[in-house]
Amino acid sequence: MRAVTAKRRLRAGIVGGGRGAFIGAVHRMAAELDGQALVVAGAMSSDPANAAESAADWYLDRSYDHYASMAQQEAQRPDGIDFVIIATPNHLHYPVARCFLQAGIHVVCDKPLALSVDEGQALVRLVESSDRLFALTHTYTGYPAIREAREMVRSGGIGDLRKVLIEYNQDWLMEAVENSGSRQAVWRTDPARAGLGGCIGDIGTHAENLLEFVTGRKIQSLCADLSSFVPGRTLDDDANILLRLQGGGKGTLVCSQIACGEENNLSMRIYGTKSALEWCHLEPNTLIHKVHGEPWRHLRTGHGYLGSAAQRSTRLPAGHPEGYIEAFAIIYREFIADIRRSQCGEPLQRGYPSVHDGLRGLQFVANAVESSRRGAQWVEMS
Amino acid sequence: MRAVTAKRRLRAGIVGGGRGAFIGAVHRMAAELDGQALVVAGAMSSDPANAAESAADWYLDRSYDHYASMAQQEAQRPDGIDFVIIATPNHLHYPVARCFLQAGIHVVCDKPLALSVDEGQALVRLVESSDRLFALTHTYTGYPAIREAREMVRSGGIGDLRKVLIEYNQDWLMEAVENSGSRQAVWRTDPARAGLGGCIGDIGTHAENLLEFVTGRKIQSLCADLSSFVPGRTLDDDANILLRLQGGGKGTLVCSQIACGEENNLSMRIYGTKSALEWCHLEPNTLIHKVHGEPWRHLRTGHGYLGSAAQRSTRLPAGHPEGYIEAFAIIYREFIADIRRSQCGEPLQRGYPSVHDGLRGLQFVANAVESSRRGAQWVEMS
Amino acid sequence: MRAVTAKRRLRAGIVGGGRGAFIGAVHRMAAELDGQALVVAGAMSSDPANAAESAADWYLDRSYDHYASMAQQEAQRPDGIDFVIIATPNHLHYPVARCFLQAGIHVVCDKPLALSVDEGQALVRLVESSDRLFALTHTYTGYPAIREAREMVRSGGIGDLRKVLIEYNQDWLMEAVENSGSRQAVWRTDPARAGLGGCIGDIGTHAENLLEFVTGRKIQSLCADLSSFVPGRTLDDDANILLRLQGGGKGTLVCSQIACGEENNLSMRIYGTKSALEWCHLEPNTLIHKVHGEPWRHLRTGHGYLGSAAQRSTRLPAGHPEGYIEAFAIIYREFIADIRRSQCGEPLQRGYPSVHDGLRGLQFVANAVESSRRGAQWVEMS
Amino acid sequence: MRAVTAKRRLRAGIVGGGRGAFIGAVHRMAAELDGQALVVAGAMSSDPANAAESAADWYLDRSYDHYASMAQQEAQRPDGIDFVIIATPNHLHYPVARCFLQAGIHVVCDKPLALSVDEGQALVRLVESSDRLFALTHTYTGYPAIREAREMVRSGGIGDLRKVLIEYNQDWLMEAVENSGSRQAVWRTDPARAGLGGCIGDIGTHAENLLEFVTGRKIQSLCADLSSFVPGRTLDDDANILLRLQGGGKGTLVCSQIACGEENNLSMRIYGTKSALEWCHLEPNTLIHKVHGEPWRHLRTGHGYLGSAAQRSTRLPAGHPEGYIEAFAIIYREFIADIRRSQCGEPLQRGYPSVHDGLRGLQFVANAVESSRRGAQWVEMS
Repeated sequence: MRAVTAKRRLRAGIVGGGRGAFIGAVHRMAAELDGQALVVAGAMSSDPANAAESAADWYLDRSYDHYASMAQQEAQRPDGIDFVIIATPNHLHYPVARCFLQAGIHVVCDKPLALSVDEGQALVRLVESSDRLFALTHTYTGYPAIREAREMVRSGGIGDLRKVLIEYNQDWLMEAVENSGSRQAVWRTDPARAGLGGCIGDIGTHAENLLEFVTGRKIQSLCADLSSFVPGRTLDDDANILLRLQGGGKGTLVCSQIACGEENNLSMRIYGTKSALEWCHLEPNTLIHKVHGEPWRHLRTGHGYLGSAAQRSTRLPAGHPEGYIEAFAIIYREFIADIRRSQCGEPLQRGYPSVHDGLRGLQFVANAVESSRRGAQWVEMS
Repeated sequence: MRAVTAKRRLRAGIVGGGRGAFIGAVHRMAAELDGQALVVAGAMSSDPANAAESAADWYLDRSYDHYASMAQQEAQRPDGIDFVIIATPNHLHYPVARCFLQAGIHVVCDKPLALSVDEGQALVRLVESSDRLFALTHTYTGYPAIREAREMVRSGGIGDLRKVLIEYNQDWLMEAVENSGSRQAVWRTDPARAGLGGCIGDIGTHAENLLEFVTGRKIQSLCADLSSFVPGRTLDDDANILLRLQGGGKGTLVCSQIACGEENNLSMRIYGTKSALEWCHLEPNTLIHKVHGEPWRHLRTGHGYLGSAAQRSTRLPAGHPEGYIEAFAIIYREFIADIRRSQCGEPLQRGYPSVHDGLRGLQFVANAVESSRRGAQWVEMS
Repeated sequence: MRAVTAKRRLRAGIVGGGRGAFIGAVHRMAAELDGQALVVAGAMSSDPANAAESAADWYLDRSYDHYASMAQQEAQRPDGIDFVIIATPNHLHYPVARCFLQAGIHVVCDKPLALSVDEGQALVRLVESSDRLFALTHTYTGYPAIREAREMVRSGGIGDLRKVLIEYNQDWLMEAVENSGSRQAVWRTDPARAGLGGCIGDIGTHAENLLEFVTGRKIQSLCADLSSFVPGRTLDDDANILLRLQGGGKGTLVCSQIACGEENNLSMRIYGTKSALEWCHLEPNTLIHKVHGEPWRHLRTGHGYLGSAAQRSTRLPAGHPEGYIEAFAIIYREFIADIRRSQCGEPLQRGYPSVHDGLRGLQFVANAVESSRRGAQWVEMS
Repeated sequence: MRAVTAKRRLRAGIVGGGRGAFIGAVHRMAAELDGQALVVAGAMSSDPANAAESAADWYLDRSYDHYASMAQQEAQRPDGIDFVIIATPNHLHYPVARCFLQAGIHVVCDKPLALSVDEGQALVRLVESSDRLFALTHTYTGYPAIREAREMVRSGGIGDLRKVLIEYNQDWLMEAVENSGSRQAVWRTDPARAGLGGCIGDIGTHAENLLEFVTGRKIQSLCADLSSFVPGRTLDDDANILLRLQGGGKGTLVCSQIACGEENNLSMRIYGTKSALEWCHLEPNTLIHKVHGEPWRHLRTGHGYLGSAAQRSTRLPAGHPEGYIEAFAIIYREFIADIRRSQCGEPLQRGYPSVHDGLRGLQFVANAVESSRRGAQWVEMS
């Protein structure tokens, strides 16, 4: 088998991503960008007509009405898919992932991992007892500037961590668009399909994940003030959170989907005893490094002065902007490389978010919701 | 008396600001910038030699060894000072202000107002029972872009307020410079001279004042997590605070003097139901206005499209940067104009922070400290 | 044939792009990004071993030792390539393009079009007499913000054009890296392979093309001061040029490959009687619109307020940065759509740079070089 | 005399600056900012009523109807002015300067120096044969970041100069405001009062001066394409210029007063063999230093890492923006210090633009106009 895949692009399937969806198409572009994989099969919608038309749009070789048949049949084909991409609403993440893992197919799953901590724990057990690989697409960890930041923190470049300020602000839910036909909004504001968290689940988990990824510190306790500003909305659409980190360090995590005028504004500042780092998703190819008493240094991706993690994660020379799709594709690049390694018996490198990161995100949501329900009191993250 | 002052620059005295100080010289430049006043007398240091030399540096007509003699003598001179500037460490604000008010001399006082809420309340009573004017130099309210922001909020331009994010980050206390001779650091980290709050008093009060000035909303309750990161430091050098505002609206206030690489980074974002505003002190002549579904508009000072409050507060055409001294001088311009109005019996306009704003700041500090002491629990701002 | 391609990704071949090259891989990513084409064949290097290894790296179905055999054989296969990508050094553009056009295969060619104006004219004649399509990859025209700018100019949004300032600055040739093994540098500084122009050909043509694309005005005359700053270099590595445009309007075009610290800094400002536009490649998702007497408006890609040209050219919601690969892929998207249209007999839309644009670029280089040789005297662009 | 001035602020007079003027008030603020001088006398308008009212607005001790009487009388008073400020339209610079120099009074003159090269040469001779000091207010040389840039170039920090790009763009004359009552516009577009140059004289000379000040290189030859875009305008309102510098180095100088949306946008980039510098007046407290192969360093005023020239030219700690008035006041600070030095017999330091710089500016205007008249041909700057 090794010989075969070593000489071909991997084959991928997708669940979800049918017409009207957003993130499915991004998964396809990201999975295929580096020329290492091709999406060839799909169960792209629970609506059979949509599924067929969407598969035709994408020139898929094989279209399925249901993901379960897809898992079963692809597992048996000699030219079956090597991995599946799960790009459905949240409530399907767990059952779909389980189905493909049990069929012996590697899984890439969109975040958040599942609907609840219980589901997440079940999925962790499943992955741990399986020999299949699992990746969660916390896209932002794929940016080279983020990988540089992580490497700098790990190597002691900022000294001892004191303060973290992380934000993720959007405005697309500042009005009740779920009542006027936005498919993206409808399921994201519905607890049955989105889970316990609204904004805190949809984007707060990205912020939490990014913070822990870059700093290497876990959130120890939090005090969360969640709001539902738009009348009639059940889930939160805004959150202000105080953080205390394991090993010291404090900070705030703010996320909002009602922050008027903000597009997709994820930003992070990390302050240590020796230096500080600042990154903003609106200009993702720049990482600002602030050494006390020295001029700010604007590190830019594509340069030889960056560490190996960042250098491995760019495709273009400096000054050729790479964006969201490219970052997303780094997750896939690392995942596919691990599939190939697993086929060769080489040690895995796991350069992508894991099922444990996904469980961590669900715990974060549950704790933030619990804190807020108690009137924004402190809660320990176990 | 009206005729006289109408034809001359006002005469000012200063307490504090001697060699080695920082803010005293800024007061002088700001007081004199618009050609409406001249500093002619001073009690510039408690050290008589320093006082005399400092007065000579400034070409003052009259130098005093003690502020009390200055108040007494200036009040009796026909060419005595019209107002006094208090630019001392915090613990002297109250006694000096009292002394000059009782001598019948108008007072401009640096912030915070006093050492404690009790002192602040006493000063409020004193000012209220006096016919002398009192201004507190919360400098940042003097920026034209800030005055524009306030006018936009007041006129309903942002709709109903939902979220406020305000920050004030510096790094100059990130090491224990109070132990290596920094005069600025020594008194600011000493509870006897600085009061209850360290960072929260020194710069947190600016943030609190600016937030309430621009939004017109008072902080209703807060949950403050204060830290002293630098070993051996008694007062806080960092704060992360959750806010709830009267009339609705939530947010965070972050301030730090250990945020490595930050110079004097005060920034504010205000999100409403119709639009949002963003301002950053590092580029103070720009105010970003974010209307949902429209391009961000970068308002710049000096333009005819701004409201009257902003237009009144610039001196130069657009594209000629005005900075900190100019903003500071707007406080003085408004204060001096009120002195002239008071002499003419015209209604005062009070375009400068008041003794009540100062008391509010002291209450903010007291509540933040109290909240933090209880383990970062919510406290109501009465 | 129509039915077939309507149901499948197009098949592409590539000439050039072997190990050690840069732009070939970008062509592959761009051609494949939207899922409309797949690179399946290649003559990736004149060195047979490199060609074979490079093709294996890319999992190509078919690898050729020479582009001529590729053209011949692919033209005869039932599953032959639909179009070829030319990603070789400049001197091969013309012979390779001729070869594939004569074999009846559509061509996408990197810029500049050819080595000389004569070659360019020959290629124009060839394309005009062929029924095959030809696209030149002036990448920057693919950016949605650039397409918005063009639409605004065309619709009269800036009024009458007065001034254009365009720059393209890099620093990668600021030292004699052609002597120390940089393959990219070696051929670009060699007149035999690069043509008459160094910097002016490599990046100056991008600036010229972008200027004419966005403004819709041709350069009428120019006065060019070209330099070779690096000792031993034959071709120019820096240019300062005065421009006069047909229909009025003046400006400057500056390009450099010795501008220390600049990565790939293409920027353009266009001033009209009603408003102005500014775009910078370092932040390509923003277009600044400056209306006299109004705040600058920062237009951002992905928003509904943009015109149709820009909206058609994004793949992600606002706030998800798209970069160089995505812009490059817009050229391919438009080209592939025209191939499909041609197969259906639908009118072509030609939303990509043409062979005529390529000839224009060669004339620009020739005129700039001629102007400079005469001591930077004015030359008419015929 | 030394003893006296050592113990007092200097006394200044002003010619021009009456109601409706702009730059006069800036001169007053700048002259007085550091507490070293006070404007006490004026001949503020050729209209006696305006002169008197303007003097009253400024609380001047003495108001004159004509500058000649002012020169004569002030020279004879024991408390007469130490220096005069010339803030009139250009055509009066020479006669007024001559008058005060001949009366033995130091002169600060706004730019450009005079109406013509001939006048400028006469003024040079006058200053050279006088023992009075003369300063020209090329404001931008007063910015600390500019002084840092100059020091870096001088000390070899950028290596050998290769390229300079300098621009000064405004839009306030983009319409024929001289026909609708703008006093500023009326005289600036009138050759009798402005001289040979419009935009090139008003702001082009600032750019030329800044370039030569920072690089230490003179312009050797230029090729200037001047335009008068606004119908009916005699003088240029836009210029695009190619430059060659003495000692090598090339570049462009662009200035415009019809560049829609630009406020007062002076910016400069200097590229050497070792590093490059970038400065922009819109954010004047930042100087970007670009070393090949390293991250850009954002130098900020107020920091200890800056050289002595920059450190001497700030008044506030880092992060407290200083702007146009503060830069202007550096010119005055240096000039006043030289007056005091001259009174003590100490060597002058001449840290301000000189009459020779002024003559250089006039020659630049004359050469640019001559070049343009010949159809934008090269002209040697003698």
